[in-house]
Amino acid sequence: MKTIKVLASKPYNVYIGAGLLDHAGELLRPVLRGDAAMAVTDDAVGPLYLERLKAALSSAGLRVFEHVIPRGEASKNAENYLRLLSAMAECGLTRADTVVALGGGVVGDLAGFAAATYMRGVGFVQIPTTLLAAVDASVGGKTAIDLPQGKNLAGAFYQPDAVVCDVSLLETLPEPVFRDGMAEVIKYAFIAETPLLERLKSPVSAQLEEIVALCVSIKRDIVCADERESGARKLLNFGHTVGHAIEKCSGYAVPHGRAVAAGMAVITRAAVHAGLCPPEVARALEELLIKYNLPADTHFSARELAAAALADKKRSGDGISLVLPVSLGQCVIREMPVDALEAFIAPALGVPAKGGESL
Amino acid sequence: MKTIKVLASKPYNVYIGAGLLDHAGELLRPVLRGDAAMAVTDDAVGPLYLERLKAALSSAGLRVFEHVIPRGEASKNAENYLRLLSAMAECGLTRADTVVALGGGVVGDLAGFAAATYMRGVGFVQIPTTLLAAVDASVGGKTAIDLPQGKNLAGAFYQPDAVVCDVSLLETLPEPVFRDGMAEVIKYAFIAETPLLERLKSPVSAQLEEIVALCVSIKRDIVCADERESGARKLLNFGHTVGHAIEKCSGYAVPHGRAVAAGMAVITRAAVHAGLCPPEVARALEELLIKYNLPADTHFSARELAAAALADKKRSGDGISLVLPVSLGQCVIREMPVDALEAFIAPALGVPAKGGESL
Repeated sequence: MKTIKVLASKPYNVYIGAGLLDHAGELLRPVLRGDAAMAVTDDAVGPLYLERLKAALSSAGLRVFEHVIPRGEASKNAENYLRLLSAMAECGLTRADTVVALGGGVVGDLAGFAAATYMRGVGFVQIPTTLLAAVDASVGGKTAIDLPQGKNLAGAFYQPDAVVCDVSLLETLPEPVFRDGMAEVIKYAFIAETPLLERLKSPVSAQLEEIVALCVSIKRDIVCADERESGARKLLNFGHTVGHAIEKCSGYAVPHGRAVAAGMAVITRAAVHAGLCPPEVARALEELLIKYNLPADTHFSARELAAAALADKKRSGDGISLVLPVSLGQCVIREMPVDALEAFIAPALGVPAKGGESL
Repeated sequence: MKTIKVLASKPYNVYIGAGLLDHAGELLRPVLRGDAAMAVTDDAVGPLYLERLKAALSSAGLRVFEHVIPRGEASKNAENYLRLLSAMAECGLTRADTVVALGGGVVGDLAGFAAATYMRGVGFVQIPTTLLAAVDASVGGKTAIDLPQGKNLAGAFYQPDAVVCDVSLLETLPEPVFRDGMAEVIKYAFIAETPLLERLKSPVSAQLEEIVALCVSIKRDIVCADERESGARKLLNFGHTVGHAIEKCSGYAVPHGRAVAAGMAVITRAAVHAGLCPPEVARALEELLIKYNLPADTHFSARELAAAALADKKRSGDGISLVLPVSLGQCVIREMPVDALEAFIAPALGVPAKGGESL
């Protein structure tokens, strides 16, 4: 087991290892203040792991309640948020008690927002069951629900009391879900100079604990320097400006990870074309994407993507900040006028690497 | 105008003076980051002051949107919260924009919770229009909505960017609303040694600016020492354990301020009876309550009140901490087993001061 200490506004530990689910009670006991927990999961993950979690928490002396939501992004809505709050109130949960999120990003975001706001904040523990949630959602303190007007429009910054990442859960996932998470893993390899890039050249399943720990450490270092997302944290958006645009253009039919994969490849080739990045960085990225069955291009036009990015920009009130690789494991942040984006990415589209997949 | 600086986790100013509403634009301009504001008010306050607020904000170059909720505590619900978030999204409010709450505690709590959670937190300004909101809700960072299961069950700690307290608004209130706020003003005079107690012996309307400023300073000093409500902040609960029990026993028919007034008188007489407080403190408190037409007793029995307080305690997970006066302007916090409350307050009931009103 590896333990990553996250020194956020509220310090906490991320425990990473195989078989940790059954030891969640012992691991969490030191940070739980109350005597009750609400286990939140979805109807895909629940049947696989909920009973084991409940047994583990019960053995640590907790009264355990459960709340199961339907699987999928559509569940991250206001109705399910209020339903969860009401369930917590009906169970008599107090300020000292804890919400335990067992699932991927949707469960973590929804349960985290409920934990952040029930009685103005109760205990919160994440047990990610997808690679994406393990390397992305468990550090950063972002919780949210979607509104009819857009994604993540209501939420809070709220740090967990602990994250328990049982890597043996991640390997039981359907392959496309795992692949989706690999896109974010590859992202980390390109925004920080660590042993991660080397490790990704060997099969990942034998070294999942080390790889997740490296990703969490990278995100931890970036986020702690910048908890409320102004400067350095933008590095985490590598591939995300174009990636979000692809998701949007596809009506969210393209999964997040695959969209980010294509987004990273496009923006890196664009940086090469602009003379900002050596071509071998783009080649290394494309090789890795191909190795992990991830796309390295998109069929949407530069005009369509720029229009989608502009709509995002209007909503957030931010300028467009592009994250551009300049060498292996090093990126820079470059502000760009919105109208310049189309011309910047146009030369990078429709030129996928040999053997590369296009979205 | 008086300016009270509040050094909370996010520092901000409380501006207190007559006629400030029309200068809200100039006062707020330095703390507003965006170019748009959502003015939130209710249908009692809106017709009186909304146009003046909009004119003031517009003159500072802001695009001003408005959102009006029905008056009364029943409006502080999840439906109105979601409706406000949707209105903000429909107006295209960004992270940099600001919610301006124009009203009493209900408007401030609801609008504050929306500001705390829209896009994980946008700008927030309070313009209290009741004495209670001016001296209580504008410092402390508590925002919340009620759930069907109980009051304030969903919420967040969220500091405003500024509070503009136009004391001339407070004097146009119906007399019972003003009187309700006076109970909290009297509370401040008994928990901190300041010139407040002396001032309350003269008519308040000529010295509202000074009185509100004193109350805000007292609350500021207590809250800043203890932002998340563990120790010293409990002093602010003087009269509230019994007061909340009275509200609850009455089915919330008794207004908050009147319940707190009776609660302060009961707990102070109980402290006298237990030999913890000199009788002249109870007499001074009762005289002030009578002077401001506030009750100094309740017809609910010690058993009924203790049962209501116990239900509160179960919900919050806290022990019962009583705030007991020990001299003029000084209180101590005393933990008490729940079962001891009934016997502690019993001797203090049904013995109101001469001329005192009983709830």
